[in-house]
Amino acid sequence: MNDLFLREARGESTERRPVWMMRQAGRYLPEYREIRAETDFLTMCRTPELVAEVTLQPVRLVGVDAAILFADILLPLDAMGSELVFVKGDGPTFPEPVRKRSDIARLEHPNVDATLGYVFDAVRTTRQAIQELDEAVPLIGFAGTPWTLAAYLTEGRSSTTYPHLMTWSWQDPAGLTELLELITDVSIDYLLGQIAAGAQAVQLFDTWGGLLSEARWRAFAMPGVVRIAEALRSAHPELPLIYYGKDTAHLLGALAELPVNVLSVDWRQPLSAVRRAVGDKVLQGNLDPTALLASPDVIERQVAELLSEGSGGGHIVNLGHGILKTTPPQHARAFVDAVKRLSS
Amino acid sequence: MNDLFLREARGESTERRPVWMMRQAGRYLPEYREIRAETDFLTMCRTPELVAEVTLQPVRLVGVDAAILFADILLPLDAMGSELVFVKGDGPTFPEPVRKRSDIARLEHPNVDATLGYVFDAVRTTRQAIQELDEAVPLIGFAGTPWTLAAYLTEGRSSTTYPHLMTWSWQDPAGLTELLELITDVSIDYLLGQIAAGAQAVQLFDTWGGLLSEARWRAFAMPGVVRIAEALRSAHPELPLIYYGKDTAHLLGALAELPVNVLSVDWRQPLSAVRRAVGDKVLQGNLDPTALLASPDVIERQVAELLSEGSGGGHIVNLGHGILKTTPPQHARAFVDAVKRLSS
Repeated sequence: MNDLFLREARGESTERRPVWMMRQAGRYLPEYREIRAETDFLTMCRTPELVAEVTLQPVRLVGVDAAILFADILLPLDAMGSELVFVKGDGPTFPEPVRKRSDIARLEHPNVDATLGYVFDAVRTTRQAIQELDEAVPLIGFAGTPWTLAAYLTEGRSSTTYPHLMTWSWQDPAGLTELLELITDVSIDYLLGQIAAGAQAVQLFDTWGGLLSEARWRAFAMPGVVRIAEALRSAHPELPLIYYGKDTAHLLGALAELPVNVLSVDWRQPLSAVRRAVGDKVLQGNLDPTALLASPDVIERQVAELLSEGSGGGHIVNLGHGILKTTPPQHARAFVDAVKRLSS
Repeated sequence: MNDLFLREARGESTERRPVWMMRQAGRYLPEYREIRAETDFLTMCRTPELVAEVTLQPVRLVGVDAAILFADILLPLDAMGSELVFVKGDGPTFPEPVRKRSDIARLEHPNVDATLGYVFDAVRTTRQAIQELDEAVPLIGFAGTPWTLAAYLTEGRSSTTYPHLMTWSWQDPAGLTELLELITDVSIDYLLGQIAAGAQAVQLFDTWGGLLSEARWRAFAMPGVVRIAEALRSAHPELPLIYYGKDTAHLLGALAELPVNVLSVDWRQPLSAVRRAVGDKVLQGNLDPTALLASPDVIERQVAELLSEGSGGGHIVNLGHGILKTTPPQHARAFVDAVKRLSS
């Protein structure tokens, strides 16, 4: 068992730095596209054997040190009663978005085993499949942060500004907080279910927290993250927790206070500066995903710089955001190989 | 003549803080939508009387202390030979994007009077119309930064990640630099033309510079901004120059070095922190544009906080990004009124 990732995440000393990539089970791999061509996205999420297959592809094909469950952050919102529909070209949509306090009544706190059991089945099937690899790696579970889930649920679709969420936050902060608390409650059940089924670490994706100023992030986004992290810690004190935020250079003061083991940041913040700001947390990241479009020798130089930036404390190597679908698979391998070679 | 804006931009002392809003001539105003309903966007840009009319609307209707020319940052790229087409629902597009060094030959360094004279005519007509107001205000000209223009020109349309630009930057940095230098040359002519026609200040919009790490921003985005600013300064030493960047919390060290009078930042960075980082520049900004969706009393409290954040040096009050089209006009007025009342 290659447990580099788990040991680094816990702050233990390791023989080299572990490496994985956000969205590593994805469209840049022809082997993924082949499966996806025959199956719609939600059916894939609901078929444990397909989840296991695509979750393991980057382990087998690219050599990463950790697997992350193939799933979508929006699945719990569907389970809460807001139907999730994937529209060709538009991506995930909620035809009936939740935009004001009275809309919250349309949602429920579901029994997660009944509504999200397919995810837990997928975790179990994937863990089993990992044991059959020549070299097993840890399996990471995940969820979106309540703020980020609320962004999609209020808008009904992806956006860059989330005007419905913002309007609500200014006009009825108490009502929005009620929604965020309900999502937080469900997220705790959902992540405890993933852990019970075999997830060995948990990453929280706060894709849209960076839209907020620090004061507003502390008011709306932080409480849910803290409550989830504390609930998981209290049930599983040894299980590593990772917070990922995009666009968080202005939030480092608040992120330093999060009760998580690992902070994962985007490619724009030099890790040395992040380390100075957040103290003794393990860092994760943060190669610019567009750097994987460069030639392998440029990638190797970028990795050397990144390793130097990340030194002086725990560091799990990753990209600063999800791998681009236009990335040549051999460039992803060049990245992983360079990390292994240069950090040994 | 209300010259508060010009005096504050030059660092002089003023009796209260000036205020204007990015995208203030725009769709949140019913009076704008009425004109736009009958005329397509490019025709509006090419009709000096319509430009003057919509440029002055926020001065008359909202009471801002400066007018900014109604135009599009992409017009110079059209003049360079890459046809700009507005597609319903898709916004501005370049059907033949420029994506590699050999594509640059399709572009030219045009005579700006011949190709962009309609903009200069619009500046002249607008200045004349301003003189007829009860209280004249300064007229701001503008351009996109070369990096931001290259983002649209390479992608052919709006994006959030600009993979074509990024690919080029990694695979052939010298070729991309050649494109950026050509755009810089044309931008200098274009802005000198706006000034000759009557623009009394210039703002450079670097909407996509924030995608870059500081090292890459210094390599690709900064040289064009510096060269434009130096060319304008050398011809017009007294004319205020403003740099606006979105997502630049990680770039403040480099922004401090820009030869401009005013730095305009987005809503996520507290102005007090920006001032500590950039020294004695005048700051512009930075209310969260979504705050204008709140009720007028919340807006007034936000303005009070912003004024306090911005104290201790020159401060032109503005939003942190363009005003949202869903903003009620009376909320825009509440913002402007609160600045005038509370900063006197």
